[in-house]
Amino acid sequence: MAEITAKMVKELRDKTGAGMMDCKKALQATGGDMDKAIEKLREMGLASARKRASRIANQGKIGSYIHANGALGVLVEINCETDFVANTDEFNALLKDIAMQIAASNPLYVNREDIPDEVVEKEKEFHRNQLKKEGKPEHVIERIVEGKLKKYFEEVCLLEQDFIKDTSVKVKDIIDSAIAKLGENIVVRRFVRFKLGEE
Amino acid sequence: MAEITAKMVKELRDKTGAGMMDCKKALQATGGDMDKAIEKLREMGLASARKRASRIANQGKIGSYIHANGALGVLVEINCETDFVANTDEFNALLKDIAMQIAASNPLYVNREDIPDEVVEKEKEFHRNQLKKEGKPEHVIERIVEGKLKKYFEEVCLLEQDFIKDTSVKVKDIIDSAIAKLGENIVVRRFVRFKLGEE
Repeated sequence: MAEITAKMVKELRDKTGAGMMDCKKALQATGGDMDKAIEKLREMGLASARKRASRIANQGKIGSYIHANGALGVLVEINCETDFVANTDEFNALLKDIAMQIAASNPLYVNREDIPDEVVEKEKEFHRNQLKKEGKPEHVIERIVEGKLKKYFEEVCLLEQDFIKDTSVKVKDIIDSAIAKLGENIVVRRFVRFKLGEE
Repeated sequence: MAEITAKMVKELRDKTGAGMMDCKKALQATGGDMDKAIEKLREMGLASARKRASRIANQGKIGSYIHANGALGVLVEINCETDFVANTDEFNALLKDIAMQIAASNPLYVNREDIPDEVVEKEKEFHRNQLKKEGKPEHVIERIVEGKLKKYFEEVCLLEQDFIKDTSVKVKDIIDSAIAKLGENIVVRRFVRFKLGEE
């Protein structure tokens, strides 16, 4: 097994924001492989993030993003558990990223749970009729509809959208990362997006 | 009659943004009194502003205001007729003033026309019942209710609120002034106000 030096621990700590002991354990578990250790910490972080998701988040910040000299504007509220975390650079960077994401990708809801049932039903109905017209057999239609619905959620739900600055991850992944790093539950509470002159 | 010099005309023009000929006429009409001439121009401007109010405003800008380190946020869209006016300092100052007004005074609607009928009816009913309980005679109740309603509108309608930076005027007055000065119809289209952690 490779020796885990203090320098390696520090490097991993700087990269992830995790505690010294966690960094050391992660490096030991991965035989000193930095990339694998980051992945490991991420998993550990995400595991504790899940536990944190039940905690009440009523602190945080409201942020805005004005694009193209006022032709587009976004207002967003992101909650965390303490004022302290709300004032960290990481939290403010997340706030800015999410506001830019909303400006660029025009989500309609935060979560799929926020979509009214009748909207989901209408969307399903539309695809069902389409597929019937195309003569698809009944027993495959529902499966295809589920696939279409998944795509729809990835389009209209902020958390399920590809992150604009790194399309290999979803928006919920960058929030999970922030939760892991900052150690508090973090929730996108609500947002609005105004486009100049839209109906 | 006092002589109207080119310097006076220029001064008035700089102060009001009105045309040369209008400034000269206003100064002549007021015997060279600068303050009265400004008032005169304002009246003339307001008269033409009324005519402008029917013109279509679909340009403009979206502005935001974040207060108290992110504890409060406002997003507002103000429309005018051209991109040119939207980029003037006056228009941007108005945008900022209106956003701050919304942050400070928490209006619920732009205009009284935006209030749903049932909300107005409920408000009336509340005061009617209150006044009946107080034993007020029927024939005065309606008049008092109208007065209470006016106060309610001044509280919840942005345009009818006292302007925070000069409570001697209403918000609609500063918009009318901007219309007079910039020569285009100007409309507060919509706004939202997020307060951190509110239900």
